[in-house]
Amino acid sequence: MDDLISFLRIPSISALPEHAPDVRRAAEWLRHWLAQAGLENVRLIEGDGNPLVFAEWTKAPAKPTLLLYGHYDVQPPDPLEEWTSPPFDPQIRGGNLYARGAADDKSQLYILMEAVRRMLRERGRLPVNVKFLIEGEEESGGEHIERYVSSAPAELRSDAALICDTAMFAPGLPTITTGLRGIVYGEIHLQGARADLHSGDYGGAAPNAVEAAAQIIAALKDRDGRIRIPGLYDRVRRPGDTELEAWRSLPFDPEQYREKEIGSPALAGEPEVPLLERLWSRPTLEIHGIRGGFTGEGAKTVIPARAVVKISLRLVPDQRPEEVVRQLEAAIAQATPRGVTAKFHLLSSAPANLVDPQNPFVKKAAEAMEKVFGRKSVYVRCGGSIPIVGLFEKFPGIPSVLAGFGLPDDNIHAPNEKMSVENIRRGIDAIIAYFDALGA
Amino acid sequence: MDDLISFLRIPSISALPEHAPDVRRAAEWLRHWLAQAGLENVRLIEGDGNPLVFAEWTKAPAKPTLLLYGHYDVQPPDPLEEWTSPPFDPQIRGGNLYARGAADDKSQLYILMEAVRRMLRERGRLPVNVKFLIEGEEESGGEHIERYVSSAPAELRSDAALICDTAMFAPGLPTITTGLRGIVYGEIHLQGARADLHSGDYGGAAPNAVEAAAQIIAALKDRDGRIRIPGLYDRVRRPGDTELEAWRSLPFDPEQYREKEIGSPALAGEPEVPLLERLWSRPTLEIHGIRGGFTGEGAKTVIPARAVVKISLRLVPDQRPEEVVRQLEAAIAQATPRGVTAKFHLLSSAPANLVDPQNPFVKKAAEAMEKVFGRKSVYVRCGGSIPIVGLFEKFPGIPSVLAGFGLPDDNIHAPNEKMSVENIRRGIDAIIAYFDALGA
Repeated sequence: MDDLISFLRIPSISALPEHAPDVRRAAEWLRHWLAQAGLENVRLIEGDGNPLVFAEWTKAPAKPTLLLYGHYDVQPPDPLEEWTSPPFDPQIRGGNLYARGAADDKSQLYILMEAVRRMLRERGRLPVNVKFLIEGEEESGGEHIERYVSSAPAELRSDAALICDTAMFAPGLPTITTGLRGIVYGEIHLQGARADLHSGDYGGAAPNAVEAAAQIIAALKDRDGRIRIPGLYDRVRRPGDTELEAWRSLPFDPEQYREKEIGSPALAGEPEVPLLERLWSRPTLEIHGIRGGFTGEGAKTVIPARAVVKISLRLVPDQRPEEVVRQLEAAIAQATPRGVTAKFHLLSSAPANLVDPQNPFVKKAAEAMEKVFGRKSVYVRCGGSIPIVGLFEKFPGIPSVLAGFGLPDDNIHAPNEKMSVENIRRGIDAIIAYFDALGA
Repeated sequence: MDDLISFLRIPSISALPEHAPDVRRAAEWLRHWLAQAGLENVRLIEGDGNPLVFAEWTKAPAKPTLLLYGHYDVQPPDPLEEWTSPPFDPQIRGGNLYARGAADDKSQLYILMEAVRRMLRERGRLPVNVKFLIEGEEESGGEHIERYVSSAPAELRSDAALICDTAMFAPGLPTITTGLRGIVYGEIHLQGARADLHSGDYGGAAPNAVEAAAQIIAALKDRDGRIRIPGLYDRVRRPGDTELEAWRSLPFDPEQYREKEIGSPALAGEPEVPLLERLWSRPTLEIHGIRGGFTGEGAKTVIPARAVVKISLRLVPDQRPEEVVRQLEAAIAQATPRGVTAKFHLLSSAPANLVDPQNPFVKKAAEAMEKVFGRKSVYVRCGGSIPIVGLFEKFPGIPSVLAGFGLPDDNIHAPNEKMSVENIRRGIDAIIAYFDALGA
């Protein structure tokens, strides 16, 4: 554990410019560690952003090649006062390792690294070929890795990617993630009057950009969470019976989820769709905020002339981001009240990703985890997006295996982030078993 | 004009703490000027806020007593770069006096002061009794005058108040304002989940407080500007035929108003109600801003747990603020989607005010202005609120005469504020004619 603790001590917070030296220190730490472990061609790939760390071991001809992905940057730790022990002074309590980055993603990355080192030390070789690609701006939306992977460099050529950055569905339950939602993220820019006007003098004549925003939002999604954009559900397919059956058998209590994870008096979303289906296989629309008008203390009586709405849709397989953008634009135009102009500006988009559970790289991962954890692996999806999965698929054309050892209550992106020490140990064993199975 | 220009040179910006010495200097300037002009009991009324300036001349027994109101503070001048000449270096160009405070309210207050001084100098006496009450925080929402007037001090006892802080409807058209809208201003506080959540992981399950705000807003007011709060229009009366007929004969072109004053592709508000009626005699609802979620640069995928909506309603005569608050609260409760709690917090309220155009103090003011301007006076209402009118009515029980000499394009609260020099001259003549008529 000593090496992992040293790694966790580095406050490699990519979102905070003052930690830029720490971010680089973490990259250098990895380079040194990987070289010591016996990896080859270890180097930092520099670019516009934090360096990528590359390393490989490719001395197993005729054996498969795995691309091992992780990230060495972490989220900011605030609010600091809510941490029981300091975020960058890792401590073990009750079988858990507490630190910022403990689960997301340093320990999970370390599971991959330690599996490789142990095999090289004990056997002098690996049963498969591996290539590490470790990024340093996953938490800050940097695009260095996107540009690099998009260039489809020969050195990345692999048979599958193994991404260790997800969680198990429940303690002790080995979990493979087979689906990620896509996203369309943008802004609606609204303009009413030329400038903000006084609501006494002009109320009843001047259009109100924030109200127009509210009218549009209410038209795009009803009170029950159904999206009202014409055509949006046309390509949405329900998952197959096998997959739905598997989800129904997962240990999941919506009422406990509401109370523990959400903390609201009721859950939102399409009432006629079971909760895990809503989260994993239904498109959703969320408003992230509205800028415009007066939001300070007190009572300023302004009619806002301008507003900006931050909006995103999560997409499911078969939905096409470009088509969704067109549908959204048409629905916005339809819902805009008179006197106001509204325009959608796309910021980013990505389609959903599905991994075939019958893919041999996926099946062997599930089997290896079953052997170590002593329980049948489950296949779940994830409501979020991991853009690297789409990149790997699109450019080097390799499928991703998403096998993670975090837990749902690991407090990632929150105070008191933790990682189960037992899961680190078992994770390393599972990866070794996986490599052996692939190399057999 | 020299004295007025000296007065305008003082940057008495009550909203900016660094100008506190200038604000006091303006009060001292007035005290000195009023004493020199022959007023008596000239003094500053100190309290929590900027001082009130009081002065009186009460040597006309059996004649009416007029309370003369104005304010000596001004709005901040920014954006400075848009001023043709510096805001506190008054200049006359094309028959207009340009300076911050030129129309709002220093020249208008000066019209009252100069009328009194001229009569005292030329005749040694006034035809009526007068009491000046001049405040220094009208532009910053200070409550010193409210507390003072609410205590109904004997020294304020008068037969009518003359407020010179409004505009003429059009150039050369003498104008009396006979109605002001009231207001209910508050915040809607919304809470969904316990904390902001990630829209990938929780989209489809977590309630979104900003979306709930949009749902509520869209339920409170339809796309055509009709308020959908049950009961809200119950007490709203249409103005009498005489008043409506008078409004219809005003020189007013809605299309020019849209283009010049609003600058939007279309006007908002109830389409079936004529524009001036919408502005003067219909309640309106405006959203001033929504705080909550993420509104910075880029694409943060948060589901906002909390939101605060700034909302106000303008009220018309007979509407009762307390009743409107109850109606609003009920409508909010009705419109709140599941999973979210919403609560209304009242910040301020005031009923509408109507001045009886048949009141002799009002009629004589209209006649005096007609004599000087050579045109029939018009009676209009104002969509905004002047809280001092309600205070005068409620406490000392005196009607207000709202006769102003500004123009609609005087740029109050904006760069290049101006006041017509001709209107200042005629205004002084009109006030003298008014006093003479009242004293006859």
